[in-house]
Amino acid sequence: MTRVARLAIIGAGPSGLAVLRAFETARRKGATIPDIVCFEKQETWGGLWNYTWRTGLDEFGEPVHGSMYRYLWSNGPKECLEFADYSFEEHFGRPIPSYPPRAVLHDYIAGRVEKSGVKPYVRFRTPVRHVAYDAARQRFALTVADLLRDETRCEEFDAVVVANGHFSVPNVPSFPGIESFPGRVLHSHDFRSADEFAGKTVLIVGSSYSAEDIGVQCFKYGASGIVFSYRTRPMGFDWPEGFEERPLVTEIAGNQVTFKDSSRREVDAIVLCTGYRHSYPFLPDQLRLKTDNRLYPLGLYKGVIWQDNPKIAYVGMQDQYYTFNMFDAQAWFVRDVLLGRIALPPHADRQADIAAWRAREEAVGDPLQAIDFQTDYVRDLLQATDYPALDVDRVAELFKEWEHHKEAGILTYRDRSYRSTLTGTMAPRHHTDWMDAMDDSLEAFMAVREAAE
Amino acid sequence: MTRVARLAIIGAGPSGLAVLRAFETARRKGATIPDIVCFEKQETWGGLWNYTWRTGLDEFGEPVHGSMYRYLWSNGPKECLEFADYSFEEHFGRPIPSYPPRAVLHDYIAGRVEKSGVKPYVRFRTPVRHVAYDAARQRFALTVADLLRDETRCEEFDAVVVANGHFSVPNVPSFPGIESFPGRVLHSHDFRSADEFAGKTVLIVGSSYSAEDIGVQCFKYGASGIVFSYRTRPMGFDWPEGFEERPLVTEIAGNQVTFKDSSRREVDAIVLCTGYRHSYPFLPDQLRLKTDNRLYPLGLYKGVIWQDNPKIAYVGMQDQYYTFNMFDAQAWFVRDVLLGRIALPPHADRQADIAAWRAREEAVGDPLQAIDFQTDYVRDLLQATDYPALDVDRVAELFKEWEHHKEAGILTYRDRSYRSTLTGTMAPRHHTDWMDAMDDSLEAFMAVREAAE
Ligand SMILES: Cc1cc2nc3c(=O)[nH]c(=O)nc-3n(C[C@H](O)[C@H](O)[C@H](O)COP(=O)(O)OP(=O)(O)OC[C@H]3O[C@@H](n4cnc5c(N)ncnc54)[C@H](O)[C@@H]3O)c2cc1C
Ligand SMILES: Cc1cc2nc3c(=O)[nH]c(=O)nc-3n(C[C@H](O)[C@H](O)[C@H](O)COP(=O)(O)OP(=O)(O)OC[C@H]3O[C@@H](n4cnc5c(N)ncnc54)[C@H](O)[C@@H]3O)c2cc1C
Ligand SMILES: NC(=O)c1ccc[n+]([C@@H]2O[C@H](COP(=O)([O-])OP(=O)(O)OC[C@H]3O[C@@H](n4cnc5c(N)ncnc54)[C@H](OP(=O)(O)O)[C@@H]3O)[C@@H](O)[C@H]2O)c1
Ligand SMILES: NC(=O)c1ccc[n+]([C@@H]2O[C@H](COP(=O)([O-])OP(=O)(O)OC[C@H]3O[C@@H](n4cnc5c(N)ncnc54)[C@H](OP(=O)(O)O)[C@@H]3O)[C@@H](O)[C@H]2O)c1
Repeated sequence: MTRVARLAIIGAGPSGLAVLRAFETARRKGATIPDIVCFEKQETWGGLWNYTWRTGLDEFGEPVHGSMYRYLWSNGPKECLEFADYSFEEHFGRPIPSYPPRAVLHDYIAGRVEKSGVKPYVRFRTPVRHVAYDAARQRFALTVADLLRDETRCEEFDAVVVANGHFSVPNVPSFPGIESFPGRVLHSHDFRSADEFAGKTVLIVGSSYSAEDIGVQCFKYGASGIVFSYRTRPMGFDWPEGFEERPLVTEIAGNQVTFKDSSRREVDAIVLCTGYRHSYPFLPDQLRLKTDNRLYPLGLYKGVIWQDNPKIAYVGMQDQYYTFNMFDAQAWFVRDVLLGRIALPPHADRQADIAAWRAREEAVGDPLQAIDFQTDYVRDLLQATDYPALDVDRVAELFKEWEHHKEAGILTYRDRSYRSTLTGTMAPRHHTDWMDAMDDSLEAFMAVREAAE
Repeated sequence: MTRVARLAIIGAGPSGLAVLRAFETARRKGATIPDIVCFEKQETWGGLWNYTWRTGLDEFGEPVHGSMYRYLWSNGPKECLEFADYSFEEHFGRPIPSYPPRAVLHDYIAGRVEKSGVKPYVRFRTPVRHVAYDAARQRFALTVADLLRDETRCEEFDAVVVANGHFSVPNVPSFPGIESFPGRVLHSHDFRSADEFAGKTVLIVGSSYSAEDIGVQCFKYGASGIVFSYRTRPMGFDWPEGFEERPLVTEIAGNQVTFKDSSRREVDAIVLCTGYRHSYPFLPDQLRLKTDNRLYPLGLYKGVIWQDNPKIAYVGMQDQYYTFNMFDAQAWFVRDVLLGRIALPPHADRQADIAAWRAREEAVGDPLQAIDFQTDYVRDLLQATDYPALDVDRVAELFKEWEHHKEAGILTYRDRSYRSTLTGTMAPRHHTDWMDAMDDSLEAFMAVREAAE
């Protein structure tokens, strides 16, 4: 790979920040790294982990990136996502419980990069609008908008990392009669405050993480009933009273919803928890990933390097059991490819590698196999770089315990504790059971333990 | 002006359709017109007049264009917006009342262009993503997305008309504490169904058309109280019980809102009716209009021709008393400039003309003067082309009557009738008073009159 003098990163969420951290770590060890510019649409870094009350379009008319809501807590143990180069204990100065609320995880993500001193690389409030590739000169021209100055600019780069996330552009199906439903209809992307649904019967379409958590949360904050509607299969948890699962909606007439089994139900609001779309409107077709949400999208060598032009990489584009530490493993790999430390095999060998991973992915039958698949994928990346040791076998075990704990109690699994694979410390139990913890602020989460110390 | 062989129109709302109609009218009279491609993001034409239940991003991840809501009726007499080349009587085959609901106006707009046979010019589901201008070749390169095929394409044109509207990208201010308000917070752009607010106290921020009409509509459909909050001045209508006007919000704490006069009020939902932003994210700076919502934005000769590159024109970018027939007057003018029928004066003379109009606009003190200003503006355009005669003096009188009728009764002005300036026919009274007309469908609006005939 010819030398990369200028590198653009699109997005400063956990994935883009992992790339910044990877390069900066190499620089501090003496490597010569490219000039890096990270373009970030939002006012600050952290990606989805920045909470905003806004929905739809933001104060600059840009689509709101945030899909997180008030009262969102980690839905997996923090021990599964811990960065191998920065433990929770290092950040907070003491052990904390396994399921932190959003603000606490945001603090952790931001804390690591604050310490790296990589902020000068980031241009905030600067969405990338358009990327053109000049094949003759092997240069990428990025048209970006400087929102604060209300100006557009064009800058050239030798390589690009796409890290704009794929859980921000909602997938919004329609159902007959939805246009005249009298209550609120929204996608989970626009869900913010569960309080709004207190006393209401809420129909939730979808049967994955958003459905499960928004349903549970509306219940926690006072909804009178939760009606889930699945397309493929019910979640099948041992739901307490107040919850029900039904097949897919077939029709809506006024407040009355009919389901595929001909059953009917009056509901007050509809939340479409129907997932997200990969969206790269700024990329030309020949550089643009087209995929649904899955463990191994095609076109990416090792899940990151764009097969038909290795000067463009994608980070974080898989469906996610692993998150932060997988983004790190990807970032370190991408860094080493762009620094010429990892030599890419020929196109055909890369294609064969992609095909082999894809075949394995297609054989995945259940969540436990999916966890094993992603574990193997992360392991494969890790062995190629100097990213600090991560005991992925132990992480995989934690993921499986988590699955069992969810089966055992969908309202109580967040009260469990797990042991850090880095520090060996067992997480303390939280001061309040999750169902009773109504305040999700960092202060509330940390408070009682501080008093106890 | 050198010959325009290929023309792109961005948007097939009333403004873009006016341009199509203008060219097609000339073609039918024997003129040679350019090859025209009209790029439209939505599935169908009609712009804002297409109702959608969707908010935020649509099924393709594009920002939803629609700002109209269920139960939206014309807020001015139809006699003020009547096309001079296509009367309401011609379209509906009989006189209809003066304040039709959205679906009826949509039918009227679409009916005219259906008859023109201009649909083949329009590429639906094709948003323009990026425009680049090559000064040496005097060509515009438009990158467009074909949403149905999930492909992007680039096409070249000699001239471009920008007609993407300016009431779709919300202007959304923030207020201290808004991030933890427990009820729904939305901008009028996302307002759809007043039913959702039945029984609630609704805070409406803003004091212009959206504030007034959404407040009135929520009241009509059962809201228990409407609290308006103004920044500059109250609307000052003789509000019935249930409405109140207060100065600007200063703080929100839980459900409690504090206003600038230190008064407080508990509310259940907040609708920000704070207007819209001109937004042309696809245009480079040197072609991009930057303005707030006003009667005479700078940079546009005769309000349409881009001063620094007359091969690009904007239609419909003024604040609007006049709508459909003003867009027509603009479209005919733009057409004649692009066909070389109207010779543009030198740059300096155009600049002086812009400055003179702007000076007059700045002297406008009240709505009646604003009506006179826009009347003069439309008259100025009309005298330059062969657009059919429009009695703008009479239209101006109707606008002034309308203003008085609103003063006389904000809940009853839509029960009034006016005389068509084209056909001379006095509009019949509607079969139901507006406050009692709960069904806003075309069928309901037309029904009883049919029975009576
Ligand atoms: C509701 C929800 C809850 C979740 N909860 C958890 C959880 O509990 N635990 C967990 O580990 N993971 C969770 N996730 C998964 C989440 O995807 C990852 O944690 C992580 O945020 C992904 O990081 P990312 O950087 O890839 O993408 P993002 O976090 O989405 O960041 C992408 C960044 O790119 C920026 N951007 C986008 N477009 C442009 C552009 N054109 N130009 C410039 N910048 C741009 C955005 O502003 C954003 O900052 C959750 C996801 C969702 C939707
Ligand atoms: C809530 C509301 C109520 C109104 N009520 C009235 C009323 O009662 N009477 C009245 O006369 N006027 C009313 N108006 C004013 C309205 O602006 C005009 O009637 C009219 O719709 C303006 O036409 P337009 O073509 O300029 O813009 P629009 O109607 O906004 O049409 C613009 C078109 O451009 C398309 N577009 C946008 N971006 C792109 C892109 N990048 N690529 C391709 N296509 C694109 C859009 O999809 C849309 O079809 C109302 C406006 C609002 C917001
Ligand atoms: N921290 C938290 O508590 C939390 C909360 C929410 C989300 N998240 C994270 O957010 C990410 C996204 O999760 P997600 O649940 O939004 O998306 P997802 O996992 O991709 O699931 C999408 C769901 O939508 C359904 N669906 C798609 N199209 C449909 C249609 N046309 N009709 C009916 N159903 C349809 C799918 O059903 P099929 O099974 O039929 O395909 C599936 O159930 C995950 O990484 C998750 O961990 C975390
Ligand atoms: N058919 C219908 O019934 C109907 C209904 C709604 C709208 N419309 C049309 O839609 C168009 C847009 O109307 P609109 O009312 O949405 O927009 P608008 O006329 O531009 O008015 C914007 C309003 O927002 C206020 N505002 C802006 N920024 C603010 C801030 N930071 N804080 C507080 N207030 C702020 C303005 O107050 P200031 O006065 O202080 O600037 C003004 O009152 C018009 O053409 C209208 O005719 C029609």
